[in-house]
Amino acid sequence: MKAEILAVGTELLMGQIANTNAQYISSRLPDAGIGVYFHDVVGDNPERLRQSFSLALSRSDVIILTGGLGPTQDDITKETVSEVLGRKLVLDRESVEQLEEFFRKRNRKMTRNNLKQAYFPEGCRIIRNRNGTAPGCIIEEEGRTIVLLPGPPSELKPMFEETVMPYLASKADHRLESVYVRIFGIGEAEVETALMDLIDGQTNPTIASYAKDGEVMLRITARYQKDGTGTGLIGPMVDEIRKRLGDAVFSTDNSSLAEVAAKLLMEKKMTISLAESCTGGLLAAKLTDIPGISAVFDRSAVTYSNRAKVEELGVRQETLEKYGAVSEQTASEMAIGIRNVSGTDLGVSVTGIAGPGGGTDEKPVGLVFTALAHKDGVIVKRLDLTGDRARIRNLTCLHVFDMVRRHLLSIGK
Amino acid sequence: MKAEILAVGTELLMGQIANTNAQYISSRLPDAGIGVYFHDVVGDNPERLRQSFSLALSRSDVIILTGGLGPTQDDITKETVSEVLGRKLVLDRESVEQLEEFFRKRNRKMTRNNLKQAYFPEGCRIIRNRNGTAPGCIIEEEGRTIVLLPGPPSELKPMFEETVMPYLASKADHRLESVYVRIFGIGEAEVETALMDLIDGQTNPTIASYAKDGEVMLRITARYQKDGTGTGLIGPMVDEIRKRLGDAVFSTDNSSLAEVAAKLLMEKKMTISLAESCTGGLLAAKLTDIPGISAVFDRSAVTYSNRAKVEELGVRQETLEKYGAVSEQTASEMAIGIRNVSGTDLGVSVTGIAGPGGGTDEKPVGLVFTALAHKDGVIVKRLDLTGDRARIRNLTCLHVFDMVRRHLLSIGK
Repeated sequence: MKAEILAVGTELLMGQIANTNAQYISSRLPDAGIGVYFHDVVGDNPERLRQSFSLALSRSDVIILTGGLGPTQDDITKETVSEVLGRKLVLDRESVEQLEEFFRKRNRKMTRNNLKQAYFPEGCRIIRNRNGTAPGCIIEEEGRTIVLLPGPPSELKPMFEETVMPYLASKADHRLESVYVRIFGIGEAEVETALMDLIDGQTNPTIASYAKDGEVMLRITARYQKDGTGTGLIGPMVDEIRKRLGDAVFSTDNSSLAEVAAKLLMEKKMTISLAESCTGGLLAAKLTDIPGISAVFDRSAVTYSNRAKVEELGVRQETLEKYGAVSEQTASEMAIGIRNVSGTDLGVSVTGIAGPGGGTDEKPVGLVFTALAHKDGVIVKRLDLTGDRARIRNLTCLHVFDMVRRHLLSIGK
Repeated sequence: MKAEILAVGTELLMGQIANTNAQYISSRLPDAGIGVYFHDVVGDNPERLRQSFSLALSRSDVIILTGGLGPTQDDITKETVSEVLGRKLVLDRESVEQLEEFFRKRNRKMTRNNLKQAYFPEGCRIIRNRNGTAPGCIIEEEGRTIVLLPGPPSELKPMFEETVMPYLASKADHRLESVYVRIFGIGEAEVETALMDLIDGQTNPTIASYAKDGEVMLRITARYQKDGTGTGLIGPMVDEIRKRLGDAVFSTDNSSLAEVAAKLLMEKKMTISLAESCTGGLLAAKLTDIPGISAVFDRSAVTYSNRAKVEELGVRQETLEKYGAVSEQTASEMAIGIRNVSGTDLGVSVTGIAGPGGGTDEKPVGLVFTALAHKDGVIVKRLDLTGDRARIRNLTCLHVFDMVRRHLLSIGK
């Protein structure tokens, strides 16, 4: 089946945002055995949307429209699609109730134009929206499947995953199964060299590698029949890759380093607390992004000022004066300090220079020290990172989660 | 003039990358008086590229193609465009020399297929590429301007800025200017109702609204002559919108709520500390994302456990037992506590249920209390949010930054 993704929104044509919805949907559809052949973007203009949608109908089996489902006058997707298909827009009672509920919950008054969002093309299947006011819908028209989804990614993604993917997968004749092998600590070139024969030799499954903010990801994709014949091709390939790359492989179920570290903490019932300087809470934010983490995560002290480091963590004034806030010694005392204060099994600390300012010749932007205090001692690691503030903070988090992961694996043995 | 951006590359249709080139070019063309009407993406497929390019020729004055200029077999943009326009590909000596130079500098040997990159459609203007091997070109065809640029952003951007923008600007008869008015605390429909007459009445400037993760953004676009006549239309419109929406307008220079709150803190030299539960450090992470914040940000206590709330913030055990960790009273004591501990001007706290678990009938997922302690007292706010864990945490941050912003504005008066 050929799919086309038609995004509606002048904000895309003005360059205010990139069309990440098309990227997201395109990355998922192959898992339903569907190939994407075209992306289009049009503004909030009925005539041009009519043209583009008609063209899509003439050349694609699956047409996914994103955006233009809001309550305002320039939200025209449902209206234009209905017109082209010659269908009436009919009011959906349940949607009205959910809209009223949505506004009641927020103590906000529902204006008349919100009602617009409760009208749908006759005979469509409505997709509920848990995260916003605009429901989506699926229309079957002469062998074509037309899907309407709202523009905000936080609304589109769950609707796509929970309703659209299963719906489309059930129609396809074959499946593509992908497994992501995620790797941290070695570069893409090194990974490719180690796997060259596998990457070249394979047709099913295929292996594609790409580098992604500090880690390397391998996508292993196998094609099999809907009835299941041809399955089981991926497992042996993953085992072979693990054998060659060892501990550098941190997940094969697409979970992140943070999720892997968190899972190990929960499995081993090891409690943890953090002391953050340059990451400024990002480490705690990423860890507490994971449901259930409260069972092992006690606290994080985001100690930006030296005073806070001394007061909250018991870092010694002399240490700060002699070695500076960004030093092996301070990182070590921060980790030991937060572990003592909170009484957790592990205490982890970060101190560094994220930039853009604050760098010197002997302590440049990108210099970061991170430490892990455990019952038998403390591990300190020096990182020399490059890039802008956001990249340095993100890479630091990856290194910290990897340090925790490797420590927990080592004591597991 | 109407522009269309046609990207060529299977990696876009696979969702490996987002079409950031289209976003970039779209954000720049209005400065040359050119409006973008369509984005298209096709794979490395001659037939489909032929279709899409022919369509673009039939409806757009300026067509910018990105990607598919490399040395390999599946780089087909120049070949297909030349074919559709009925022009021969001719060898450009200067390009050959520059290719040889490029490889000599890197001590790499030039393979035969690289020569492909020195062929161009007859009669075009060649755009040199300082950062890669693929030159671009500009073709004038019966009143249409066709621009070919390589896909890598690091090559495309300088070529676009140095050659394409000046070329196009010299052809356009007018310019477009846009200002973004960002709004928090009222819904999109409500905003539109308040501005209906302006939105309907206006032709220049025009007003477009859209909702974006909890906030509403208005884009005001004015068209003026190349010589400058017709400028100054946007200011009065922004003032009128401010008058109608008041404090709900938080920025007109496209800065975020976090940036606005941080800027106010720095301007007023008001120091701040945070006590976070359900946001788990996200609030601190967003604040410390802003360079220079260390001048006013002292610390954040991410107190996930009740014990940490008592130890670090002095929340009373009775309060936790009587009202629970997620309560007005606990939020209030957390804010007062962190302000006292850190000795900052402001103390801000957050406690809530981000989900997916942990909700009850009287305290459902999405219930959040946030408090701001200042020298004269404490403000507590109850939020009833919906969505997944990530959305609830992000919306909470917006509400907190808005609370800080409004407080600083009020004491400013």
